[in-house]
Amino acid sequence: MISSDGIPPIKTKDIQIRETSRGLKIELPLKKNEQIYGFGLQLHRLNHTDRKKVIRVNSDPVADTGDSHAPVPFYVSTAGYGVYVDTARYASFYCGTNLPKGASKHLKDKKKAVGTSEIELYGYQTAEGDRSVVVEVPVAKGIDLYFFEGPNMKAAVQRYNLFSGGGVLPPAWGLGVWYRAYSAAKNEDVMRLAEGFRNDNMPVDVFGFEPGWQTRAYSCSFLWDDHRFPKHEEMLEKLYKMNYRVNLWEHVFVHPSSPMYDDLTPYSGDYEVWDGLVPDFALKEAREIFADHHLRHFIEEGISGFKLDECDSSDFVHSNWSFPDVAEFPSGLDGEQMHNMLGVLYQSTLLSAYKSVNKRTLSQVRSSGALASSYPFVLYSDLYNHKVFIRGVVNSGFSGLLWAPEVRHASSAEDLVRRIETVVFSPHALLNCWRIPNPPWMQVDQDKNKQGEFFDNYEEVRELCKTLFETRMSLIPYLYSSFAKYKYEGIPPFRALVMDYPDDPTTFNIDDAYMMGDSLLVAPIVSEESERKVYLPEGRWWDFWTNTPYEGGQSYVIEPKLGKPPVFIKDKSILPIAAPLQNVKDDTVFNLTVKVYGENPKDFILFEDDGTTYNYEEGIFNRVRLSYNEAGKGAVERSGNYIENRYQITNWKYVN
Amino acid sequence: MISSDGIPPIKTKDIQIRETSRGLKIELPLKKNEQIYGFGLQLHRLNHTDRKKVIRVNSDPVADTGDSHAPVPFYVSTAGYGVYVDTARYASFYCGTNLPKGASKHLKDKKKAVGTSEIELYGYQTAEGDRSVVVEVPVAKGIDLYFFEGPNMKAAVQRYNLFSGGGVLPPAWGLGVWYRAYSAAKNEDVMRLAEGFRNDNMPVDVFGFEPGWQTRAYSCSFLWDDHRFPKHEEMLEKLYKMNYRVNLWEHVFVHPSSPMYDDLTPYSGDYEVWDGLVPDFALKEAREIFADHHLRHFIEEGISGFKLDECDSSDFVHSNWSFPDVAEFPSGLDGEQMHNMLGVLYQSTLLSAYKSVNKRTLSQVRSSGALASSYPFVLYSDLYNHKVFIRGVVNSGFSGLLWAPEVRHASSAEDLVRRIETVVFSPHALLNCWRIPNPPWMQVDQDKNKQGEFFDNYEEVRELCKTLFETRMSLIPYLYSSFAKYKYEGIPPFRALVMDYPDDPTTFNIDDAYMMGDSLLVAPIVSEESERKVYLPEGRWWDFWTNTPYEGGQSYVIEPKLGKPPVFIKDKSILPIAAPLQNVKDDTVFNLTVKVYGENPKDFILFEDDGTTYNYEEGIFNRVRLSYNEAGKGAVERSGNYIENRYQITNWKYVN
Repeated sequence: MISSDGIPPIKTKDIQIRETSRGLKIELPLKKNEQIYGFGLQLHRLNHTDRKKVIRVNSDPVADTGDSHAPVPFYVSTAGYGVYVDTARYASFYCGTNLPKGASKHLKDKKKAVGTSEIELYGYQTAEGDRSVVVEVPVAKGIDLYFFEGPNMKAAVQRYNLFSGGGVLPPAWGLGVWYRAYSAAKNEDVMRLAEGFRNDNMPVDVFGFEPGWQTRAYSCSFLWDDHRFPKHEEMLEKLYKMNYRVNLWEHVFVHPSSPMYDDLTPYSGDYEVWDGLVPDFALKEAREIFADHHLRHFIEEGISGFKLDECDSSDFVHSNWSFPDVAEFPSGLDGEQMHNMLGVLYQSTLLSAYKSVNKRTLSQVRSSGALASSYPFVLYSDLYNHKVFIRGVVNSGFSGLLWAPEVRHASSAEDLVRRIETVVFSPHALLNCWRIPNPPWMQVDQDKNKQGEFFDNYEEVRELCKTLFETRMSLIPYLYSSFAKYKYEGIPPFRALVMDYPDDPTTFNIDDAYMMGDSLLVAPIVSEESERKVYLPEGRWWDFWTNTPYEGGQSYVIEPKLGKPPVFIKDKSILPIAAPLQNVKDDTVFNLTVKVYGENPKDFILFEDDGTTYNYEEGIFNRVRLSYNEAGKGAVERSGNYIENRYQITNWKYVN
Repeated sequence: MISSDGIPPIKTKDIQIRETSRGLKIELPLKKNEQIYGFGLQLHRLNHTDRKKVIRVNSDPVADTGDSHAPVPFYVSTAGYGVYVDTARYASFYCGTNLPKGASKHLKDKKKAVGTSEIELYGYQTAEGDRSVVVEVPVAKGIDLYFFEGPNMKAAVQRYNLFSGGGVLPPAWGLGVWYRAYSAAKNEDVMRLAEGFRNDNMPVDVFGFEPGWQTRAYSCSFLWDDHRFPKHEEMLEKLYKMNYRVNLWEHVFVHPSSPMYDDLTPYSGDYEVWDGLVPDFALKEAREIFADHHLRHFIEEGISGFKLDECDSSDFVHSNWSFPDVAEFPSGLDGEQMHNMLGVLYQSTLLSAYKSVNKRTLSQVRSSGALASSYPFVLYSDLYNHKVFIRGVVNSGFSGLLWAPEVRHASSAEDLVRRIETVVFSPHALLNCWRIPNPPWMQVDQDKNKQGEFFDNYEEVRELCKTLFETRMSLIPYLYSSFAKYKYEGIPPFRALVMDYPDDPTTFNIDDAYMMGDSLLVAPIVSEESERKVYLPEGRWWDFWTNTPYEGGQSYVIEPKLGKPPVFIKDKSILPIAAPLQNVKDDTVFNLTVKVYGENPKDFILFEDDGTTYNYEEGIFNRVRLSYNEAGKGAVERSGNYIENRYQITNWKYVN
């Protein structure tokens, strides 16, 4: 655990707050070399120093404004502290962007060349010297500010995550491969896909249903459609027998044909969306009605989770589909507040249903916010190009969020493989194939896929995908244990390099590579490029695929083979690798080869529990310590009170 | 003049206003077939029915949010009325976007197919039936609403423009061709260009200087640079002798090295921009200091106008260059209000300097707002593609604004010509060549232009441009008289087709063609296309170039030759065409051929005055009525008290 000095990182006397015509203005000190990160799922930028960010939920953030599926009014600094502004309003953070009048008077005689381009004219001037972060909170008349100590940025993030209740410990099966099926699928289409994966030995843990499973979507009835899925219980039983978990798509808007409609009407906002109610999940009554329906109709039928769509709002794109900021809710929240909170309230509502039956879920959500680290919901959206997806993984770790760089489209077989490379080395190995009836390794072109026109070399493509899925499966114990550190120590399992190397300025703006756990550095490549530069921080690093050593503190140009993205292991690591499985059952035992990189490696601690319930919260788990002594012997030390073994260590491999 | 029934278009009992947690919420009725237009310089959309618009000044409006260089809280309806909400705050207009809870309960059993694409899923539903426009004004506790009668949309716009003081009557020279020169130009570069135009007989009226003329820019000193322009007064005299008017670039931010800096300091906002002050032009003192400096240093040296840059703010793009919303100004305005007002206040400040010496200006500005019809400043920005530039021309007419679809870049010689076609049939024939030292008809590629590598066929390209410039010059009397109608009747000289044909649904969404005056329909073509569809409203139309008649009420596919964009003249029009000149001098007399299209044409009234002063406001002008009687004779009837003649009618041409 990290200790505390008990010294606030920012002194009260250095904080200015006052009321203005528009709300509150808060000024916090910002010293000249500080770098600012955070603000949630910021997809367009990593480093927010000298930038403005508005904390506004938006499903279509087309520019670097701060708008995000999951904006968070929390930032951290390389100086080693974090600041959380406790508001649901569209707060603006000006991270040292502006200087007060007269600050540059002394620069009167400084020369400046005449520009002949916008960049030269606008000449992005980093304001020099110490300045301020200015936070504006509209409407508010008072505010709670939370300051998180360091001593470094990672510790500040840890404290924020622990303050939020600790990070997510997902069910072990959640770390496997997910496949979301064609939205217009019927029973037979589902079975065809599901049987196909098993026949082809493609590891898939979770099968996702898209909108077509309900009688009505946009807005939702929350009832199985008997025409597309007659006797759906039997279909589910077959899927469970094939060791699939099932995840159902939905969104929060309740259609008049839903059995929940009349009960929820008094506990909903004053505008409808897609003909449906917007339940007010800040009210206990609304949460109970909604959670209860899900429990009785789905969770008790074994549904393992949900995809919570469209809780992120957008008034601006091809349609104005969400409620306006001026909406009112019976709890007293207005539309602005509800937009910023809906994702979190929605997650909380469904999580309570799972907790009530002591089953862990890993689910998906399109919006989240502050203090959400403990919610087992991964953020997603299918709007972005590959580089933006990657940046989302890098950034989420600053704010207690998880992001899936989902594979939902590919321009070619090569592009498909590159995207799968990224997703298997990400928090959530998700293929979102809602637009195609046949798997993408058969054909990525949407029209051809619908017409059954497949790649000539689909078997080759499928093999590449299978190998990557197996790699993912082999990393589950490592990942699971990294998530346990998220839970108990608040260390984000996926994080920017600057968080681990805050004194290395080369890492300050690296938004295309990240740490996966403590030992893996992942630098995905996009299909538009045949090579990429990878910066390895100081120390030695080992190529994941070839075991070749690299000396760090410098960049390398890597030309990765298809199916083998740039992944490096930190020297002095112990890395457990499992024999890959097709899926993770409740009683799965992982057979591990333990790889040791370099001399005098750091111990690795596997977290061992039932992987599916909340019993670990009662202390029912083991810590399995893997260590490697100077004499060249590996040791396994198990301690705890969980009576079963989920890990068998089969052998050790020393890499040097 | 239009008469008034004195009946408010919206009854008081149908207006709902109340305070909310965030400000004010206003609801106004919207009937099911109404189409909504307006909201200022909206570059991304013409028809705002079922859309949300936020009235926020922004120099980089990347999406259809309402953000604009010149957003205006004013809209008009095809039902024949206009609504102005008098606020400088970032008001939101929801034009029938949302239905109240329960409105769709009766649609419970309506079928909806399962979508397999975003559009199908989000299924843009136009809310059916009567609904509301909801306006939210943040912060405000009270509001003035102005309703403009019809009986039709054009009349409502006229009333708004007259309420604003009437539209602009620009100086006649302002309607000629403008050339803004290379920003790094020195004295010799300016003379080379200026002499070159005259030698090549390229009509150019206004020569524009970009930032390099000042000792300092970003922020500005407002002083001539003696190194690049030693003895600038002599250079100006030479330019005036060649019959150029001179326009100087600037922006509002005052650098510490400016003689105005110390005087303006107490009358400026609490943040600086690019090291400089933000003068508070809501204060008389600041306006006087600024206007006085411009009068003494520039206007009295014969400078004909200014280009008021960067008054439109952006916190979001490659740099955060403007003051924050949370800024405060000594007048009491905050940053939000100042952002929405800065363009208008800046225009007003410089206009007062010109009025004080009884000289008309036509200038340029990057931001404007409400009630600005009378300000002789044309909006511009160089950010957009050709189609967006065109849409800006179509849209501006709803809100009392003028927009220049400037030529500032071209991908090829053909693209250059197409863009010049558009700009000569627009409010402002502006070539903005600040990035290239040689004229664009020599070379459009920036690097090659700088190195003097010209088109092989530059003479041919130049000829095409010259012919288009001459066409512009020949239309000046027609345009000038159209602007006089803007001044006295409030009729926008450039306007969307729907404004003239509000009962023709085909026009509702035409954002790529517009009326230029009462008689010309302009449908520009972009170089990416070799042909385009042109919709001609009911009645007959005549091809401007060939005099071929077309029957309206239908669309035609036109393949316009290079240099001859699709332009049509309404049947029964009288159109004065001047012999083209190189420039418009103070004593210029236009020699007119009067073209008559069709039988029993409507009279055309030429507005005749000195073209340069405000004497017309004292009634010193003539109306020169051109009519054509059934006997086939043209008649000229001059009435008024301006003693000189600016128009000589040389002959008449009858087209049938």
